[in-house]
Amino acid sequence: MGTESKLSVAIVGASGYGGVQLVRLLHAHPRIALTYLGGNSSAGRSFTDLYPQLAPFVDQVIEPIDLDVIAERAKVVFLALPNGLAQGMAPTLLEKGCIVFDLSADYRFRNLQTYETWYKSARSDHSVAQEAVYGLPELFRDRIATANLIGCPGCYPTASLLALAPLLKQGLIQLESVVIDAKSGTSGGGRQEKLHLLHSECDNTLSAYGIAHHRHTPEIEEVASTLAGQNVILQFTPHLIPMTRGILATVYCTMRDPGLVREDILTIYRAFYRQSPWVRLLPSGIYPSTKWAWGTNACYLGIELDERTGRVIVLSAIDNLMKGQAGQALQALNLRMGWDETEGLPDLSFYP
Amino acid sequence: MGTESKLSVAIVGASGYGGVQLVRLLHAHPRIALTYLGGNSSAGRSFTDLYPQLAPFVDQVIEPIDLDVIAERAKVVFLALPNGLAQGMAPTLLEKGCIVFDLSADYRFRNLQTYETWYKSARSDHSVAQEAVYGLPELFRDRIATANLIGCPGCYPTASLLALAPLLKQGLIQLESVVIDAKSGTSGGGRQEKLHLLHSECDNTLSAYGIAHHRHTPEIEEVASTLAGQNVILQFTPHLIPMTRGILATVYCTMRDPGLVREDILTIYRAFYRQSPWVRLLPSGIYPSTKWAWGTNACYLGIELDERTGRVIVLSAIDNLMKGQAGQALQALNLRMGWDETEGLPDLSFYP
Amino acid sequence: MGTESKLSVAIVGASGYGGVQLVRLLHAHPRIALTYLGGNSSAGRSFTDLYPQLAPFVDQVIEPIDLDVIAERAKVVFLALPNGLAQGMAPTLLEKGCIVFDLSADYRFRNLQTYETWYKSARSDHSVAQEAVYGLPELFRDRIATANLIGCPGCYPTASLLALAPLLKQGLIQLESVVIDAKSGTSGGGRQEKLHLLHSECDNTLSAYGIAHHRHTPEIEEVASTLAGQNVILQFTPHLIPMTRGILATVYCTMRDPGLVREDILTIYRAFYRQSPWVRLLPSGIYPSTKWAWGTNACYLGIELDERTGRVIVLSAIDNLMKGQAGQALQALNLRMGWDETEGLPDLSFYP
Amino acid sequence: MGTESKLSVAIVGASGYGGVQLVRLLHAHPRIALTYLGGNSSAGRSFTDLYPQLAPFVDQVIEPIDLDVIAERAKVVFLALPNGLAQGMAPTLLEKGCIVFDLSADYRFRNLQTYETWYKSARSDHSVAQEAVYGLPELFRDRIATANLIGCPGCYPTASLLALAPLLKQGLIQLESVVIDAKSGTSGGGRQEKLHLLHSECDNTLSAYGIAHHRHTPEIEEVASTLAGQNVILQFTPHLIPMTRGILATVYCTMRDPGLVREDILTIYRAFYRQSPWVRLLPSGIYPSTKWAWGTNACYLGIELDERTGRVIVLSAIDNLMKGQAGQALQALNLRMGWDETEGLPDLSFYP
Repeated sequence: MGTESKLSVAIVGASGYGGVQLVRLLHAHPRIALTYLGGNSSAGRSFTDLYPQLAPFVDQVIEPIDLDVIAERAKVVFLALPNGLAQGMAPTLLEKGCIVFDLSADYRFRNLQTYETWYKSARSDHSVAQEAVYGLPELFRDRIATANLIGCPGCYPTASLLALAPLLKQGLIQLESVVIDAKSGTSGGGRQEKLHLLHSECDNTLSAYGIAHHRHTPEIEEVASTLAGQNVILQFTPHLIPMTRGILATVYCTMRDPGLVREDILTIYRAFYRQSPWVRLLPSGIYPSTKWAWGTNACYLGIELDERTGRVIVLSAIDNLMKGQAGQALQALNLRMGWDETEGLPDLSFYP
Repeated sequence: MGTESKLSVAIVGASGYGGVQLVRLLHAHPRIALTYLGGNSSAGRSFTDLYPQLAPFVDQVIEPIDLDVIAERAKVVFLALPNGLAQGMAPTLLEKGCIVFDLSADYRFRNLQTYETWYKSARSDHSVAQEAVYGLPELFRDRIATANLIGCPGCYPTASLLALAPLLKQGLIQLESVVIDAKSGTSGGGRQEKLHLLHSECDNTLSAYGIAHHRHTPEIEEVASTLAGQNVILQFTPHLIPMTRGILATVYCTMRDPGLVREDILTIYRAFYRQSPWVRLLPSGIYPSTKWAWGTNACYLGIELDERTGRVIVLSAIDNLMKGQAGQALQALNLRMGWDETEGLPDLSFYP
Repeated sequence: MGTESKLSVAIVGASGYGGVQLVRLLHAHPRIALTYLGGNSSAGRSFTDLYPQLAPFVDQVIEPIDLDVIAERAKVVFLALPNGLAQGMAPTLLEKGCIVFDLSADYRFRNLQTYETWYKSARSDHSVAQEAVYGLPELFRDRIATANLIGCPGCYPTASLLALAPLLKQGLIQLESVVIDAKSGTSGGGRQEKLHLLHSECDNTLSAYGIAHHRHTPEIEEVASTLAGQNVILQFTPHLIPMTRGILATVYCTMRDPGLVREDILTIYRAFYRQSPWVRLLPSGIYPSTKWAWGTNACYLGIELDERTGRVIVLSAIDNLMKGQAGQALQALNLRMGWDETEGLPDLSFYP
Repeated sequence: MGTESKLSVAIVGASGYGGVQLVRLLHAHPRIALTYLGGNSSAGRSFTDLYPQLAPFVDQVIEPIDLDVIAERAKVVFLALPNGLAQGMAPTLLEKGCIVFDLSADYRFRNLQTYETWYKSARSDHSVAQEAVYGLPELFRDRIATANLIGCPGCYPTASLLALAPLLKQGLIQLESVVIDAKSGTSGGGRQEKLHLLHSECDNTLSAYGIAHHRHTPEIEEVASTLAGQNVILQFTPHLIPMTRGILATVYCTMRDPGLVREDILTIYRAFYRQSPWVRLLPSGIYPSTKWAWGTNACYLGIELDERTGRVIVLSAIDNLMKGQAGQALQALNLRMGWDETEGLPDLSFYP
C-alpha cells in the first residue's frame, strides 16, 4: 500500500510514554501514515533525541501545536496530553473534519458535573462532550464505529471494567459490595521528573495512594452504573508496584445468588466476550501474571468463586500502556475505520 | 556480659531465610549466646558456606538435629523448619526443660481440627498443642511472658491481625465484610529452588495465588474470632510482588456505625497500641511503604475512612522476615525473658 | 500464503526460554509453519501448560524426541538443548536431509580440541563438526547462506564479537589488550530451578562469575583470531545483573595508532556494517541501554575513544534471548532460505 | 552516657540520601548527639516530612544554614552538599574551632588544579585545602586521626582504591594497564528529580555513562599515584545498574611479574589490610555480591589471577551510601575521636 493511500494520523503530545507507544504502534501499522508529531515543551526537538533507540525509523521533528496545520495534515488526531488540554482543541479539530481520539480524562464522562467535581475545573464545551463516546471497544463497539470524538479510558478503569462488566450486566452481584484493589507499574505515572517516581524510591517497595480519592473512581462508577442500570458506588484503591509496566486489578464482589458455581460464571463471561479477541479468559485455577500481557493489547481474566464467603474474585491483567492506553486507542481506531480490531497490534508478548 | 552469663539459644533449621535472620539477630543480641545451629539437608556444612558474607562472625558448622544435644546445649530453641516437623520435636524439648519458639504453622492453632483440615495432616500432640501460645506480642503479651511453647505467627497473619485487632476488639465493623488484599515479596517463598521463584519469572510482574485457599486464612480467622468474640469468616488474597522483602496488607472493612470519623478510629488505634513500641501509627494521609520497615521489627499502620462507601481501609506494612518472622520471634523471646521488647532489634531501617 | 507452501520447522527443546522465544517468533513468521515441538522432561505436556499466556495461539503438545518423526515432519530443525546433546542428533538429521540450527555450544568450534578442553567432553563427530558454520550473520553471511549445519553463537560472544570485529579486521588494536566486561540479565541462566537464580538471591544485587574460566572465552577467541588473522587471547568477565533480559558488553582495547580520532573509528564501523540491518551505530556521546533492544534482534553499538589512555571503548547491547539466541537463529534461517534478513523479526522495542 | 557528655554533631545538607544515612547512623551512635540539621531548599521543614518512617525518632526541623549557629551548637560538622558549596563554609567553620567532614568533592584533591580542570571552577581557598586529608581510613588512618578538615572520598574511588592499593603500594602491576569497570545502584545519583533516574527509565536496563570523562577518574588517579610513587593514568567506566544500593568495581591489572600465584597476592592483601576491620577478603573462588554489604560499612574483596592473560582481577563490593559515603565518614569520625573504628556501625547486613 503506497503512503498516499494510507490513513494520515497526527499525534499531539508525543514525548511521553503514551506518545512513544503510539508512535511505535502507528509506525508498524500497515494502513497508517504518521504525518505529524506535535508537542509543547518538546517542540523543536527531534523525536530520536528523546528516544535514540527509534532512530532511524522515526526521524521526525516534534512541531509546535497548531490546529490548522494538524487538520491539514491528518484525518485522525490522537491527543496524548495532560488532563484539561484536549477540551480546548477537540471542538476545533472536529469542526475541521478530524476524527479525534483523546487519551486524557477530558472526554470520558457523560456527566460533566462529575468531571468538574473530581477534576476541580469548570467545562464550557458541554455540547461537544455529549457527543463523545467512551472508547472501551468491548463495551461500546457499535458506538465507537461511528463516533468522531472518542474519550479513551484510563488504565485502571479498563482493567476494572473488563473484570466487572459481565457481572454488572447480568445483575449477579450486590452492587455496594464491589472492592477493586488495583496494582500498577510505575510507567503509569508518566515520563515526569517526580520524586516519588525515582527508581530509588520505587524499587523494592510497595505502597497505596489516592485511597478513597483517586480520580479513576468516578470514571469506573459511571460506566459501571450504565452497565448495572442503577447507581453504583464502589471502593477503588490503587497501589504503586516496583515494576515498569502492567496493571493487575483484583476485584471482589459478593454474589446475589449463592447457588451459582464457578463454571456458571465462566460461561457468562465466555458469552459476554465471545466477539472480543483481546479478552482472554483463563481456565480454572490459573491466575494471570501481568508480564503475560507485555507489549500486547490483551486483557487476561482469571475468575474464582469462594464458596466460604460468597464472593467472586476476578483478576484482570493488562499492559497499562497498551490495552490501558495506546493499544486500546489503536484498537478503537481500527474499529472506527472498519478494519479488523487486531490489526497492527502484537498478539503474543515475549516472555520472560 | 560474659558468655557464661548469657542465655544459650539453639536454632534448628538455620539454612533458610528465616534461619539466617535469626542467626544475625541473635549474634547481635547482647544477652544471647548462639550455642547450636542444626539442620537436615545442610548438616555438616559450615554456615558461611551458605552465607559467605557472615564470615568471620558466624563460623559455626550446622549439626545434624539431635534433641538430646540441643537440650544440653541450649535453654531456648527456635525451630525454623517446614510445617509438620516441629510437632515431632517440641514435646521432647519441652520435657527436657527447653523453651520452644516454633516458626512453623504447627503450634499456631487452638483448634487442631482446623490445622488438620487446612494442612491435610493428622495430629497426635493435642495436649502439648493446647499449651502453646500464639506469639503475637501486641495481642498476647501476658501469655507469652509465661509460656514455654510459642507458636510464632505467619507473616501475612501478623500484618493482617495488627491492622484488624482494634476494629475487631471494639466491635466497630461488620464481621462478614472483611477483605484482606495482601502483597508479599519473594523471600516469603523461602530459599527454595522453585520455578515460580526464579528471578526471570518474578521480576517485573505481579500475580495473585492461593485465592480462597491460602492456609493463612484460618490462622487469621481463628485469632480474629477470639478478638471479636464470635466467628469471623473473611476474604484473604495473597499476591507475589517483584521485590525481595516486605508485606503490605490492604484491609477493607465496612463500619457498623457510619457516624464515626477518621480521628475517632485513630484514637482507638492509639489507645490499643499505646504500649506497643513496634506498632507505628501514621498521621492522616500518610500511607506506609514497605521499604520503611526493612530490617526493623516495625509494623507501620495507615488508616483511612471512606465516607462515600462507609469503609475503613487499613494499610499495614512489615518486613516479612522481621516482624513477619525472625524479628517477632526475638521480640517474643525478649518478653518471655522479662527483657525490654525492643532489645537487640534495629529500630530505624536504612533508606532507600 | 497457505500452510502447505510454508517452510516446515521443528523445535527440539521447546520448554526453556530459548524455546519459547523460537515458538513465538516462528508462530509470527509469515513463511513458516511450526510442525513439531519436542522435548525430554517436558514431553507429553501441552505447551500452554508451561506458558498459559500463549493459549490459544500455540496449542501443541510437546512430543518425545524421535529423529525419524522430526525429519518426516520438518525441513528445518532448531535444536535448543543443553550442551552435549546436539552432537548425538545433528549427524542423523543432516543425513535425513534436514537443515539444522543448533543453539548449544556443540557446533560453534572449528577446533574441536578447544571444545573438548573447555567443555571437558570428548567428541566423535569430527567430520560433521567441520562442516558447521558459525551462525553470526554479520560475520559469516555468505557461508550461512549455503550451510546445512549452523552452530548458533552464544549470547556473550554475539555482543562481544560485534563490538570487536571491525577493530580486529582492520588491525587497529593491540591484540593482547582486549578486556571484555560483560553484564547479563538472569534469563541467560535459563528456566532452571537453581538457587543462584532465585529472585531473592538476584534482586538488587550484582556479582561476577566464571572469572578467567567462562566457556564463552574460547568461543570469542576463536572467532576473534580468525578475524585478526592471528591468535588472540583476551580477558572475558561475565556479571549477573538484576534484570531479566539484556546483555551489555563493555569492551576495552588499546589502539595501535594513537593518531586516529573517534570519527575515523566510527567511519570504519559504518563501512563494516553497511549491509547489516540489525547493527545500529549510535551517534557520538550516546551509549546504549539494554532495554532499547528488548524483543528486537538489534545490536546497538556506542563507541568512545579515550585520548588520555589511548583506548577505544565499545558498548554493545543486545537482547540476550533475541540477537543473543532465538532472534539470531531466525535471522540465520532467513539468510539460509534467501529471505530478507529482517523478516518476521520486530524492529522496534516497546519502551519503557 | 548523658547527652551533656556526648559529642555534638551538625549535619548540613540533611535532606538527601547521604544526609538521611548520616542522620540514622548518628542517631544510633552511643557517643554522639545530633544537635543541628541544616539545609537550603529543605529549610523550615520537619525532617519527618521528608522521611515519615523516622518519626518519632528524628523530630528535628531543618534549619537554614547559619555558620555561627552551627559552630555554637556543634563541635563536629558534616557537610553533605552539592559540589562547590563546602569551600565557602569550611574555612569559617575551621576558624570557629569545628572539625569538618566534607562529603563533596571540594576537599578531596591535593592538586587543586586538577579540581579546577575537571570541575570547571576556580578555587580561592588554597591554603585551607592544603590542610585537608583524604578521608579513606584504610589508607590514611594516621593523618585522619589528627586532621580538622577531612575530604571524604566518593563512592567509586572508595571501591576502586581499596581494590588497587596493595597492588600499587607493592609495585606489582603495570601502571598503564589499569581498567576499572564500575557498576553502581541508582541511589548514587541522589534524591533528585531527574529523568534518567526515574524507575521506568532505570528498571530492567543497564548502561554506561561518563566514559573517559567521569570526575571520579582524577580522584582515583591522584591517590593511586601517591600509592605508586609515580603518575598513574587509568581507565574508569561507570555503569548504572537497576538496583538501589551498592557498587561493584571490577578492576583489571596486568601483573609485572608473571611468576606470582593467586595465594601470593592474597597474602599481600592480608598483610596490607590486617588492621582494617571493614575490609573483608574472600577465600579463593568466592566473588562478592553487592547485597552482602547492604547497610554495613564493609568492603568485600575477591581476588582472581588469570594465568592465561597475566592479569589480576579484583572485585570490590560496597554499599555506596555506607562505606561509599555516610558510613565511611562516621568511620573517619571514630578515628578522629580516638574511638574504635567500628563503633556505631552495623557489621552484618540483613539478607536477602
